[in-house]
Amino acid sequence: MTVLAVDLGGTKVAAALVEPDGTVVEASRHRAPTGEQASTADLEAAITGVVRDALAAAEGPVTGVGLAAAGPVDEAAGTTSPINLEALHGFPLRDLVADAAGGLPVEFRRDGVAIVLGEHWLGAARGYDDALGMVVSTGVGGGLVVGGKALGGNAGHIGQIELSGYTGSVSLGRTTMLESVASGPHTVDWARTQGFTGATGEDLGAAYRSGDEVAVAAVRRCATAVGQGIGSAVALVPVSIVVLGGGFTRVADDFVPLVQAAVAAHPLPYVAAARVVPAGLGGDAPLVGAAALMYRRDLLP
Amino acid sequence: MTVLAVDLGGTKVAAALVEPDGTVVEASRHRAPTGEQASTADLEAAITGVVRDALAAAEGPVTGVGLAAAGPVDEAAGTTSPINLEALHGFPLRDLVADAAGGLPVEFRRDGVAIVLGEHWLGAARGYDDALGMVVSTGVGGGLVVGGKALGGNAGHIGQIELSGYTGSVSLGRTTMLESVASGPHTVDWARTQGFTGATGEDLGAAYRSGDEVAVAAVRRCATAVGQGIGSAVALVPVSIVVLGGGFTRVADDFVPLVQAAVAAHPLPYVAAARVVPAGLGGDAPLVGAAALMYRRDLLP
Repeated sequence: MTVLAVDLGGTKVAAALVEPDGTVVEASRHRAPTGEQASTADLEAAITGVVRDALAAAEGPVTGVGLAAAGPVDEAAGTTSPINLEALHGFPLRDLVADAAGGLPVEFRRDGVAIVLGEHWLGAARGYDDALGMVVSTGVGGGLVVGGKALGGNAGHIGQIELSGYTGSVSLGRTTMLESVASGPHTVDWARTQGFTGATGEDLGAAYRSGDEVAVAAVRRCATAVGQGIGSAVALVPVSIVVLGGGFTRVADDFVPLVQAAVAAHPLPYVAAARVVPAGLGGDAPLVGAAALMYRRDLLP
Repeated sequence: MTVLAVDLGGTKVAAALVEPDGTVVEASRHRAPTGEQASTADLEAAITGVVRDALAAAEGPVTGVGLAAAGPVDEAAGTTSPINLEALHGFPLRDLVADAAGGLPVEFRRDGVAIVLGEHWLGAARGYDDALGMVVSTGVGGGLVVGGKALGGNAGHIGQIELSGYTGSVSLGRTTMLESVASGPHTVDWARTQGFTGATGEDLGAAYRSGDEVAVAAVRRCATAVGQGIGSAVALVPVSIVVLGGGFTRVADDFVPLVQAAVAAHPLPYVAAARVVPAGLGGDAPLVGAAALMYRRDLLP
C-alpha cells in the first residue's frame, strides 16, 4: 500500500509517493513552480504534471491521494482560494487531482491541517492529544489537533489573527496581522526599512549569524510576533505543544527558543506553559502531512 | 428530574434548580456577592449557602449539579483561578460544591463553556454545529462548540487574545488584550479619559441614547474591538454563528450590529461571513448554561 501525497503552495506544487511508515519514495518526487504570475492553465498543467509523474514511479498499487493546499479552502466544494495564488480561486482542485490520478480517492484538506496531522502521526507532536502545528515561511499558517482529532476546514488559520504593537507589510489589505508582520518576506521587508541591504531570508540568516544589529532586531521581532500570535491562539484553543516549522524558522539557530520565550511571557499560566518545539519532519513535513490525510483519515472530522 | 445549576463569577455566585426544558425554578433562585474583597472563607460561605438554599427548594429528586465558574479552570483538579477572585485561586471548588450538595455528581466547567452549551441547547445557537458564545460584561469570555461538541477546559478564553490598534486598561498586566480594551468597566474607564463623567455601564448607556459624543465613541470603540477579537478567533476556529451576551451588550440597542459590521470587515471571506446574534437566553444564560453541563453532558469532551 502506497499513498500519493500532493502539496500545493504559493511557490510550488510537489508530489511524491509515501509509504505507510512515512518514507517518501525518492524516485517519485516531482515538483513544479506555481507563483502569483502563473495563469490558471499554467497551474493546471503544473499540478497535473507532478501528479502523473509521481504516480508513474509507483511499483505497486496506490490506494489514494492526500491533497494539501494553501487556504482558505472550501472542503465541501473541493476548492481553495490561496491568498497568494489568485488564478486558482474557486478552481475545482480536488476534481483536477482526482482526474489526473485516474480516479483514485482524494482526501483534500488545507496544508495547515496536513502539517499538524503529520507531526501528530510521526513528528514532534506524537503522543499529544492537543497540538498547534505552525509554519513560518512565505506565509504564516497552521492547523490544530484537539482531543486527539484534527480540526478540519480553515481551523488553525493563524496568519490572519491580529497582533498588538506591530505594523508590518500589507497582506490581505492589513498590516497588523501575524502574517503581515512575521512572514519571511515581510520580515526581510522590515529589515530593509531599517537599512538591511540583503534580499532573502537566507541573506538575513547570514547577517544574523554574523551579528548584524538590524538582522538581529528583525529576527527577534519576527520571533516575538510569532510568540504573541501563538499566545492568542493558545489562549483560545489550549494546547500543550506547539510545533514550529517552515523554512523561515531556520533563519536563526535560536529562533524556536526566542518564540518560546515570547509565549512564556503570556499572562495566562496555561498559555505560558505551552511548549514550543521545532517540527520533527523537517523539509518533508508538507508531503508526509499530505500522506497523513490518507493514512490517518481516522483523525479527520 | 431536576438539576442544580451553579454559576460562580467575579461579582456574584448564583444557584437555582433548572428543569429539563431549561425553566429556572423561581422559588429556588439564590445569589450572594463575591468580589475581589472577599476572603476565601467569605467565598466558601457564599457558595455553600446558595447551593444549600437552592437545593432546599427542591420538591423532587435532584440528579446532579452543573457548576460553571469564571476561569481559567483546571478541570482535572476541579479548581479554578478566576482572574478577579484571587482568594479562590487553587481552591477545591468542585469538591466544596459536591459536599454542599450532599454528594451529588458535579459537572464542573468554565462559564464560557456553559454559556455556549446553553445557547447551543436552547438559545440562539440551536442547530449550529460550530458556534462561538461570548460574554461582554465585567470581563470578556467565551466558549466554543466545534463539530457539534463543546471544547472543554479553557477553550474559548477570548478575553486574553491581543488586539491591534487599541490601548485599554491594565488587565492581567496587559493593556492590549480584548478584555483590557472592551470589558464594561474598561470601556467606562476609557470614556472617562475622554471626559465622560458617569461611573457605570448604565450611565454610559443612558449617555449613548441621548447622543453624547464621548459615549457614542466609547460604545463604538468597544463594539469594534469586540468585532476585531471575534475576527481573530473565527479565523483560527471557523464558526458560522457568534452568540453575544453579557450585561454590557445592552449598553446600546445597536451594539450587536456594530460588532457584526466589524466582523464583516475581516479580509478572510469565511470570517466576514460569520453571523453575530444576540444571546437567546438573556439574563438566565449563565444558569441555563450551567444546567446544560448536566443535561447535555453528552456534548462535553
